[in-house]
Amino acid sequence: MTDTRTTIRAAVIGAGMAGQAHAFGYRNATMAADLADVRVVLDTIVDPNLDLASSVAARYGFEKAVADIDAMLADPTIDVVSVALPNHLHAQVLPKVIASGKHLFAEKPIGRTPDEAAGLARLAERSSAVMGVGFSFRRLPGLAAVARAVADGVIGDVHTVRGWYYADYAADPQGALSWRYDQELSGGGAVLDIGAHAIDAAQFVAGPVERVLDAQLRTVITDRPRPAAGGIGHHAAVTDETGPVTNDDVAIITAAFAGGAVGTITLSRIAHGMPNSLGVEVFGTRGHALFDSIAGGQFHVFEVGAAPAAVNGPRRVFTSPAHPYFTDVAPMPGGGVGTGYGEAFVAEIQEFVRCVRDNRPMDTDFAAAESMMNVVGAALSAARRGTPVPV
Amino acid sequence: MTDTRTTIRAAVIGAGMAGQAHAFGYRNATMAADLADVRVVLDTIVDPNLDLASSVAARYGFEKAVADIDAMLADPTIDVVSVALPNHLHAQVLPKVIASGKHLFAEKPIGRTPDEAAGLARLAERSSAVMGVGFSFRRLPGLAAVARAVADGVIGDVHTVRGWYYADYAADPQGALSWRYDQELSGGGAVLDIGAHAIDAAQFVAGPVERVLDAQLRTVITDRPRPAAGGIGHHAAVTDETGPVTNDDVAIITAAFAGGAVGTITLSRIAHGMPNSLGVEVFGTRGHALFDSIAGGQFHVFEVGAAPAAVNGPRRVFTSPAHPYFTDVAPMPGGGVGTGYGEAFVAEIQEFVRCVRDNRPMDTDFAAAESMMNVVGAALSAARRGTPVPV
Amino acid sequence: MTDTRTTIRAAVIGAGMAGQAHAFGYRNATMAADLADVRVVLDTIVDPNLDLASSVAARYGFEKAVADIDAMLADPTIDVVSVALPNHLHAQVLPKVIASGKHLFAEKPIGRTPDEAAGLARLAERSSAVMGVGFSFRRLPGLAAVARAVADGVIGDVHTVRGWYYADYAADPQGALSWRYDQELSGGGAVLDIGAHAIDAAQFVAGPVERVLDAQLRTVITDRPRPAAGGIGHHAAVTDETGPVTNDDVAIITAAFAGGAVGTITLSRIAHGMPNSLGVEVFGTRGHALFDSIAGGQFHVFEVGAAPAAVNGPRRVFTSPAHPYFTDVAPMPGGGVGTGYGEAFVAEIQEFVRCVRDNRPMDTDFAAAESMMNVVGAALSAARRGTPVPV
Amino acid sequence: MTDTRTTIRAAVIGAGMAGQAHAFGYRNATMAADLADVRVVLDTIVDPNLDLASSVAARYGFEKAVADIDAMLADPTIDVVSVALPNHLHAQVLPKVIASGKHLFAEKPIGRTPDEAAGLARLAERSSAVMGVGFSFRRLPGLAAVARAVADGVIGDVHTVRGWYYADYAADPQGALSWRYDQELSGGGAVLDIGAHAIDAAQFVAGPVERVLDAQLRTVITDRPRPAAGGIGHHAAVTDETGPVTNDDVAIITAAFAGGAVGTITLSRIAHGMPNSLGVEVFGTRGHALFDSIAGGQFHVFEVGAAPAAVNGPRRVFTSPAHPYFTDVAPMPGGGVGTGYGEAFVAEIQEFVRCVRDNRPMDTDFAAAESMMNVVGAALSAARRGTPVPV
Ligand SMILES: NC(=O)C1=CN([C@@H]2O[C@H](COP(=O)(O)OP(=O)(O)OC[C@H]3O[C@@H](n4cnc5c(N)ncnc54)[C@H](O)[C@@H]3O)[C@@H](O)[C@H]2O)C=CC1
Ligand SMILES: NC(=O)C1=CN([C@@H]2O[C@H](COP(=O)(O)OP(=O)(O)OC[C@H]3O[C@@H](n4cnc5c(N)ncnc54)[C@H](O)[C@@H]3O)[C@@H](O)[C@H]2O)C=CC1
Ligand SMILES: NC(=O)C1=CN([C@@H]2O[C@H](COP(=O)(O)OP(=O)(O)OC[C@H]3O[C@@H](n4cnc5c(N)ncnc54)[C@H](O)[C@@H]3O)[C@@H](O)[C@H]2O)C=CC1
Ligand SMILES: NC(=O)C1=CN([C@@H]2O[C@H](COP(=O)(O)OP(=O)(O)OC[C@H]3O[C@@H](n4cnc5c(N)ncnc54)[C@H](O)[C@@H]3O)[C@@H](O)[C@H]2O)C=CC1
Repeated sequence: MTDTRTTIRAAVIGAGMAGQAHAFGYRNATMAADLADVRVVLDTIVDPNLDLASSVAARYGFEKAVADIDAMLADPTIDVVSVALPNHLHAQVLPKVIASGKHLFAEKPIGRTPDEAAGLARLAERSSAVMGVGFSFRRLPGLAAVARAVADGVIGDVHTVRGWYYADYAADPQGALSWRYDQELSGGGAVLDIGAHAIDAAQFVAGPVERVLDAQLRTVITDRPRPAAGGIGHHAAVTDETGPVTNDDVAIITAAFAGGAVGTITLSRIAHGMPNSLGVEVFGTRGHALFDSIAGGQFHVFEVGAAPAAVNGPRRVFTSPAHPYFTDVAPMPGGGVGTGYGEAFVAEIQEFVRCVRDNRPMDTDFAAAESMMNVVGAALSAARRGTPVPV
Repeated sequence: MTDTRTTIRAAVIGAGMAGQAHAFGYRNATMAADLADVRVVLDTIVDPNLDLASSVAARYGFEKAVADIDAMLADPTIDVVSVALPNHLHAQVLPKVIASGKHLFAEKPIGRTPDEAAGLARLAERSSAVMGVGFSFRRLPGLAAVARAVADGVIGDVHTVRGWYYADYAADPQGALSWRYDQELSGGGAVLDIGAHAIDAAQFVAGPVERVLDAQLRTVITDRPRPAAGGIGHHAAVTDETGPVTNDDVAIITAAFAGGAVGTITLSRIAHGMPNSLGVEVFGTRGHALFDSIAGGQFHVFEVGAAPAAVNGPRRVFTSPAHPYFTDVAPMPGGGVGTGYGEAFVAEIQEFVRCVRDNRPMDTDFAAAESMMNVVGAALSAARRGTPVPV
Repeated sequence: MTDTRTTIRAAVIGAGMAGQAHAFGYRNATMAADLADVRVVLDTIVDPNLDLASSVAARYGFEKAVADIDAMLADPTIDVVSVALPNHLHAQVLPKVIASGKHLFAEKPIGRTPDEAAGLARLAERSSAVMGVGFSFRRLPGLAAVARAVADGVIGDVHTVRGWYYADYAADPQGALSWRYDQELSGGGAVLDIGAHAIDAAQFVAGPVERVLDAQLRTVITDRPRPAAGGIGHHAAVTDETGPVTNDDVAIITAAFAGGAVGTITLSRIAHGMPNSLGVEVFGTRGHALFDSIAGGQFHVFEVGAAPAAVNGPRRVFTSPAHPYFTDVAPMPGGGVGTGYGEAFVAEIQEFVRCVRDNRPMDTDFAAAESMMNVVGAALSAARRGTPVPV
Repeated sequence: MTDTRTTIRAAVIGAGMAGQAHAFGYRNATMAADLADVRVVLDTIVDPNLDLASSVAARYGFEKAVADIDAMLADPTIDVVSVALPNHLHAQVLPKVIASGKHLFAEKPIGRTPDEAAGLARLAERSSAVMGVGFSFRRLPGLAAVARAVADGVIGDVHTVRGWYYADYAADPQGALSWRYDQELSGGGAVLDIGAHAIDAAQFVAGPVERVLDAQLRTVITDRPRPAAGGIGHHAAVTDETGPVTNDDVAIITAAFAGGAVGTITLSRIAHGMPNSLGVEVFGTRGHALFDSIAGGQFHVFEVGAAPAAVNGPRRVFTSPAHPYFTDVAPMPGGGVGTGYGEAFVAEIQEFVRCVRDNRPMDTDFAAAESMMNVVGAALSAARRGTPVPV
């Protein structure tokens, strides 16, 4: 049996929380039936923390682990590269990857500021490689189904939007002062770290935000213990020393959408009891729709007049093969079996791989990241100035 | 058996949607065990629509129905008066009732503007009678329980607030253009009609709003058919003629609370599929709490550390005799049996009657109404000016 | 104004938990618009515990309280009588009321055994007065709406049924040994006390049970402290002495329905954390429906093919004026405002009063009670014998 | 870098619905940190439908696809074998695999009857290889967490159990007559196909069933179109010819548990609107617990006295790293991110691989399968005879 499959050789830069999810995505990409003609070779994990890189390589089946980005980029056999680095490294590393000519799949938010994002987007535009961005929540079947239903006009014209991301990763004041709490390194607290997803999700469902009408940022926990070296994600051993938190724990954005709707997007990383809930709720002239990732195996759609009033009400729709991505990521795809957040990474890497194979641009591209970052940028200005700011 | 009970003779002005609920409240007030020493005499229903007044009197057991407010007020045997009139009549009628020396229980919002509310509040302050206001949602056991839990420190210091009132009474563009859609007659659309309740509820749980940071008002359905005469509440026959809607269908307020919290209050009267949902969600330094009237027989409380992490999570608390008002309004009071919105009117009239009996001021007084109206006033200014406005 | 209304003079026998709910029902009966032509006079509360009777009379506006049933029955001015006595008194008191010729509204279950129920039903059949029974759960708008939707064929032919009543009133082993725990006085533990409602509800929605296929009864808490005198409902002071529980805490019935369906009915009075949840869930050839009283302001209906698969799912229907009873018992009737369990008593007394006014039989009559009791009787036999028992 | 990892070479027999899930499991097994010392080689997919086998091999990264089981078994390099074949082939194929000396992971139910299961269990006992069975639902973090909480005594002694599996895969009467509808090929309809999981789950949480007290089996859809060749899982093209369904669509089992509890287990494959919901609800002397796979990212625990009554209620616990399997299968493990059903296969293969590496028996072994099958066997007898049957 000759292998006629297209081979795509992949590397992941950054072996932390997001990097591991990418590794999982590459490993499972070909489970989609339409990708059986592709062979994804799991080549390299790159992280200066080589122990971490090695362990991630072993756990996710990558051939090797290295510490040096440049060496890896110099390897001509590598076709695609994921970048999952702390935000302050995006502007430093992404240009190199773009320059290498390899296809790039970069974690959100793409830099820390509208300027950084714009600069990177300009570079990406000039590349002929696929340039994708990790707006992973869009790959949840329930959120994608809501976006599709809204686009299909099921709820009429959208007039009111509520987006949110509640997380509790920062609710404990004893949590380590990682790069996420440093405005310089991160570009933003909740407003960007989780706001990136919630803003993108709101735009995905309700169309582009055209104006930030108001933004409020609050830091509730002002000091935290400094981490010992080597932590990843939200977990790190702490030291006795404390340092200041220089970005927001809570952000509330009021926004006007280009389509005429108005709404709020609320971001909190200190939402005790709500560990991870990204949601979008939209009301339109004929109904409403709601998705909440914390019960992501379902979403809700109301359509006025769809049934006699005595038996009409919001429908609780269970995710199923009728929805985007489901069949491609659920090894036993059936209505109601449920998919997890890991599967969102499989779906996005599948989409990235399809674009690479077919040589076409990706839906979640640098322009999408720039658009999202412009909303964050407008929010930060609005928060500072106390006036509306166009996006 | 000599009747040693205190007699309280009651009249209700306005026999519409709210007036009927007051009538129900008076009729059932004495079911509270501690009010068995009071005899509430259901005396008069006053409404220019005498047919309506008569039918309401018959249905709720009032002795008579009259059309003339002044004549009723001149009757010295009447002790207490409820006023449930369209907003533009508050400033006209409430002073007369106050002048009569009778105890007054007035429907929210108390006038249409901060000025009207302030004027009325000044009059009320000078009265030695009880001056209560109908913030009926506060009497829902679940909302009152949340307010109590927050006051008791169960969730720590509140930093983030979300209040809302979603209703669909105006979602149908063919609904009649009643006084509610006229800025002049109403003082506000969703922002005041249902906002009064949601703002009061948010303040009840999270303390006073000190500054409106931003407010957005939108009119989505700009014209409606004019009503034929005689409709009440949200229902009226319509004519062929249409007229303009001059107030808001949707309002979004961002607010700073005196206690340091920040939050949003979203009001919509066109929320398809959410017929009547008033809610408050608060996050604090030790937990969160949530109440939503659409499932008002329960509320949710999360307390960090209250149980080992593997079995901790938001608690779904069913309303029960452990909560305010429950035992007084549920004829068969048991955990989980549920009480409805009608019972909120029983509870508020009970509280009013207690204050009358005991000659003490009421918790929901004109100052509370003025405070709420000042938030609405600040919201309307903020919406006009596009800048923050102190309350 | 001459009063042209029909006068109905009412007495309630038994001033305990259920008697108070009846009192509430009579007091509010005429709030239904179609009952404005009736004047319900709240005449007498009868209870040997005269203090209790007096207090209940005062609280619910009845003219007098007496201890003696016979004297009250001898009063020819009294038109209608409710009986809300412990089960062992039904067979003793109901015949007297029937003999008096007065209209009778009797609390479930109507005696303690199929024989007692049958005897009482035969007496009732011979009366020309209205003979109603208090299957109060049927008056919850949500349950009634489910029954109506099923009857209308919305879910096709029902094949599978689940009924339940979970309560926790007996979950605390220190709760007093009232008449409810005595097989002789009660006729049954959970199987009858709450089973009466759940079985009636299941039959209301899914049609008559034709055969008990299996029944399991369990007593988990075998001894309880004896009560001090004077407790009502589930609450009584306890003594140091304990006594045996002689009926079931938990009962599980498997039943065949005449329409071809099969199902279970589970009853527990020791369901920690589920204070009061009566439910019915039915699956049919075209959908399913579910009602749970613990969130009684909503119910769920699924209809296959009612919407494209990608947006179809169980509908969460909020109770509203579109549903039975709602408008008659909610003083401010609007979708989603919610009604409580108290309102179920208003609705059933309204229906009783209508039947009295119109001189027609009631839907929840002694035959319904007999049918329910026959299911319990069959369940008790099946439990004893370990074989199926026809109803 | 010398690879010091233990190599485990895997084959999967059966490339249908379950076989693909196993393939996914093997592919991701080593993502658990404690399995980084193992190298799982994805060797062979075996299915007579060679096109299917090839496509599954390609999609899940297996080196080859073959049609012949015996040839594969003869290959000494293969260490572990999964069997995911229709039930009637278990008794035929499993003995061969056992005889091969390879480690075996077999899909439930292990044969079609207690006799077949016992025969296979006896064979397995005699093997020194690891002999595991695919009770995949046990690997859902939420169900495992409930089992652990119950075992830890959080809810006291369990007295009442409800288990269920509602699915809708057979709700459409036009669905193809696959092996699942043939009593001879399947060994049982809902009672075994999904009952296997629900019974195992109930035993997992509440301990062994000791007696089937009653069982009811019903076939609602008696004829179905015969499939065209080649379908897998629940999907196949159909022909014009119909054939009889010879097993149950709905099964209701009443059971006594060895620990003293009583309960029901309800199985339906025709539950319109409930595509896939496996659940267990248990009430004990100190609380209750509930898991429902359709919202599998959460479960519910109530503990009496765990908080003051005014704020106590069932806790909605979101699955997180505090729960079994979570960290091992979620590439980005955080509270509330959610895992899907696919991850259950990863977790079970991980556990299988651990047992192989460590040379120890698996928790879900042939004895567990035999125990489950004995409950089904007792249920089928009880259904036939109409009397209780010991397990
Ligand atoms: N899509 C999603 O849901 C998520 C996206 N992210 C995004 O992923 C990015 C990374 O975040 P996390 O994984 O949470 O961070 P992390 O702190 O867990 O991991 C960052 C990793 O980068 C490594 N690193 C640091 N400098 C490096 C360098 N010069 N070269 C190579 N590796 C280097 C660190 O050793 C560490 O292993 C961020 O941009 C974040 O916004 C993060 C989490 C979730
Ligand atoms: N607490 C609550 O939940 C609610 C409060 N309200 C408040 O109650 C007030 C009344 O609202 P609705 O009852 O909905 O209005 P509605 O339109 O249903 O009824 C108003 C009634 O006032 C009568 N009326 C008009 N002019 C009168 C006069 N000069 N003297 C006596 N009666 C007169 C009308 O004939 C009509 O019957 C408003 O201020 C509203 O904000 C209304 C509904 C709910
Ligand atoms: N529909 C429903 O939801 C409910 C129905 N019930 C039914 O109502 C009936 C009474 O139950 P509860 O009210 O809970 O009992 P309870 O124990 O609360 O009250 C019984 C009352 O009957 C009085 N009584 C005893 N002997 C009497 C006599 N000879 N004459 C007059 N009064 C006498 C007692 O003093 C006590 O006040 C039962 O048949 C029960 O099944 C009870 C509760 C709820
Ligand atoms: N753990 C779980 O959640 C699930 C377990 N199962 C179990 O897995 C087993 C298989 O069920 P499905 O995958 O649904 O069946 P399926 O019908 O989807 O697949 C069966 C496969 O076996 C193949 N096959 C038939 N004869 C064969 C032979 N002699 N050698 C090799 N392959 C052969 C067929 O070509 C087909 O591809 C059953 O025992 C079932 O109970 C099935 C689905 C879910």
